[in-house]
Amino acid sequence: MPASSGLARQHAPIQFYFDFSSPYSYIASEWIDAVAARHGRRVQWHAILLGVLFQAAELKPPVAYPLKRDYALRDFERSAHFAGLPYRQPGAFPIATQHAARVFWWLHESQGHDAAVAWAHAGLRAYFTRGVALNDVVALKALAGESGLDAAAAEAAWGDERWKQRLKAENEAALAAGVFGAPYCIVDGEPFWGQDRQAQIERWLASGPFKRV
Amino acid sequence: MPASSGLARQHAPIQFYFDFSSPYSYIASEWIDAVAARHGRRVQWHAILLGVLFQAAELKPPVAYPLKRDYALRDFERSAHFAGLPYRQPGAFPIATQHAARVFWWLHESQGHDAAVAWAHAGLRAYFTRGVALNDVVALKALAGESGLDAAAAEAAWGDERWKQRLKAENEAALAAGVFGAPYCIVDGEPFWGQDRQAQIERWLASGPFKRV
Repeated sequence: MPASSGLARQHAPIQFYFDFSSPYSYIASEWIDAVAARHGRRVQWHAILLGVLFQAAELKPPVAYPLKRDYALRDFERSAHFAGLPYRQPGAFPIATQHAARVFWWLHESQGHDAAVAWAHAGLRAYFTRGVALNDVVALKALAGESGLDAAAAEAAWGDERWKQRLKAENEAALAAGVFGAPYCIVDGEPFWGQDRQAQIERWLASGPFKRV
Repeated sequence: MPASSGLARQHAPIQFYFDFSSPYSYIASEWIDAVAARHGRRVQWHAILLGVLFQAAELKPPVAYPLKRDYALRDFERSAHFAGLPYRQPGAFPIATQHAARVFWWLHESQGHDAAVAWAHAGLRAYFTRGVALNDVVALKALAGESGLDAAAAEAAWGDERWKQRLKAENEAALAAGVFGAPYCIVDGEPFWGQDRQAQIERWLASGPFKRV
């Protein structure tokens, strides 16, 4: 390999996949950029639909299982507090998030990655700390306005075939990359599933693959 | 509450549930006693059958799902190395572990908790670092002998109705306690599922429930 490829690899962005209805995505969304920055990396955010991935992978969310549900609801809140974050379990959960995700990709294309990430934070924080129902078009439009977006344009975007197709393509690309859950990070080809892989991601960024014992 | 109850709570043992065929149980089994000791606690180990719990909870192991399987096999090894442990993915996986678990409970009753824990370590290490098939009665009997047990007595124990019933009762008790996976720790009534909750367990032991942000 040419001498430049090591450098290129070192500067490759971290791929970060999230769903607006995923509590663990919310938690990871609050640290992923800082973790990357500590190691001179950037993050490429991807809004995806967990429901589509679950269907392809024959999986269900943890709250779909009787015994796991109670634990999961407890662990969402506890893990957020452990990470120093506010958390309030939304009453309606999980919810369909295709509208919020299409707004993400519309912003990504029309205003750039940072604008899309700002919307991701706005949506995740609104849902997981204030219970704003992102699947309610009135609430979502209001949130778009509060977040400094053109609310009517956002509403037009989530109903637009162009962003429907874009989100569909992004879900398919995620599946092709092996993504089956969220948050899901890919660092130099290595996949890390879950907000609880933060320490592993940090060490991987610092020193690469863990040594075989 | 009387003044003594705080002290009693502080000294209550950590409940630790594991399955001999669970890679994440193997990882946690290597740190749980040290974590407890750092906080003046002891650990009460419970050998259980994940298959029984999964059936009751309508769950399947991660390797039963097409997309999750590849990730899981990678994460088992990576997480072991991250924890500083040797790991070799067994060829036959997962396996039925009722024989090894019955030996655990037989030892627990006849020789005490420490002897049962020594057997747990012997079984988990043999399976996850040397590929010793714990579901193979010849290999299991040999392992019992190597581990300083009376191999014939161990073989008699795993075929004995008494230890079959004991394991059944322990599985039922685990289910009643809300256990649906392994490793599963209960600290003063608070459940922690997974080897990746070590940091949360440490903080909980040090300072109790995490403060609401």
